[in-house]
Amino acid sequence: MSDHIVSAFSEELEQLSADLLRMGGIAESMISDACRALITSDLQLAHETVDRDGLVDDMEADIEQRIVRLLALRQPMASDLRAVVAALKVSSDLERIGDLSKNIAKRVDEVSGCDVGGALKGIERMGRAVSAQLNDVLDSYSEANAAMALHVWNSDEDIDQHYNSLFREVITYMMEDPRMIGAGAHLMFIAKNLERVGDHCTNIAEIVHYQVTGDYLASNERPKAPLLGNG
Amino acid sequence: MSDHIVSAFSEELEQLSADLLRMGGIAESMISDACRALITSDLQLAHETVDRDGLVDDMEADIEQRIVRLLALRQPMASDLRAVVAALKVSSDLERIGDLSKNIAKRVDEVSGCDVGGALKGIERMGRAVSAQLNDVLDSYSEANAAMALHVWNSDEDIDQHYNSLFREVITYMMEDPRMIGAGAHLMFIAKNLERVGDHCTNIAEIVHYQVTGDYLASNERPKAPLLGNG
Repeated sequence: MSDHIVSAFSEELEQLSADLLRMGGIAESMISDACRALITSDLQLAHETVDRDGLVDDMEADIEQRIVRLLALRQPMASDLRAVVAALKVSSDLERIGDLSKNIAKRVDEVSGCDVGGALKGIERMGRAVSAQLNDVLDSYSEANAAMALHVWNSDEDIDQHYNSLFREVITYMMEDPRMIGAGAHLMFIAKNLERVGDHCTNIAEIVHYQVTGDYLASNERPKAPLLGNG
Repeated sequence: MSDHIVSAFSEELEQLSADLLRMGGIAESMISDACRALITSDLQLAHETVDRDGLVDDMEADIEQRIVRLLALRQPMASDLRAVVAALKVSSDLERIGDLSKNIAKRVDEVSGCDVGGALKGIERMGRAVSAQLNDVLDSYSEANAAMALHVWNSDEDIDQHYNSLFREVITYMMEDPRMIGAGAHLMFIAKNLERVGDHCTNIAEIVHYQVTGDYLASNERPKAPLLGNG
């Protein structure tokens, strides 16, 4: 590529990364707001969080269209091509994180007012852990830091352990008081959604690691806690 | 592109589509085998289904690498580029369908032997409906048939209604007999997984429709049943 084409490509790629990070920031705010709305029974915040998902969806569609245009016009090679494909995949993971957070926010109304005891504390802790994972993996993307990506990838086990202890706790509540079964079912799906946000962070960590080093992380070598209620 | 390059590109794209359809066929077998293993308490079939997911993962990784190579070497434009990006996205949806089916198969052991009454019949019906959706959307991909893709897209509402009636039924079982709560929780996750396979079929339908017509299907115009236990 001639110099001015190279520079136009770099600029577009930088703009794309910046928008991806902004999209990641919105997804991050959705997770923490969905959890906060749940814990404080704040229906207004829950609605706002649900609405924010449209923005994330629009950003994903926009990023995808720009990537297709970028591929067509600039025809990047080697590491540039790897960066473009990585951006496409990361945007799809972020869009799913938005969906999962929206789904948590939609359940606030169903759980609100039920005495589900300590389970909400567990959700709060798990939500914080998952938000931290997303924050770290977005930093690793922004800084092209493979070591940080690897760290996120290795700590998904902690999220799984949060999930397991919540699953046990909720089942116990439901058994002790069958009137809690409806709210308990929602709490289990909420915990599962957070666990899946953790999985998407792991995906992003794999993408960043590959983009930076060219090496695939092997899923079967990742430390994992056997998931309860997950087979 | 010169003639022989065009023809090499078409051949590679055809091979890619063929492999994608083969991957789809394996994912389809995984859904129906996971449901059959559940209904007949066949642990052997459940294990085989879990193992098959590795194959789907490997196929996705292989397809992705070939697509990146295709983009780099052939630098496709316009509709060819759209076809390559579509293949990349479809393979990611199929990989998730494999994951979800594996997750159902992993739960067979937990539900096996529990008297969960009519709920298994409901899972069987829902599994059949979801398999039919996947079958139809793969046909629409193979035939580049936008009308068929639109049909799949419009019938996701039926899957949602299957899910709602199962959710109600399982909650009732759990309330009537708290010893069913553990197995009931697994059944709810199984129903949720099938509902999500339906969502991935809808995604694929949107990709096919866009690839063939160049028009986006707007998610907010799709007929939807409000999901119970889904906020």
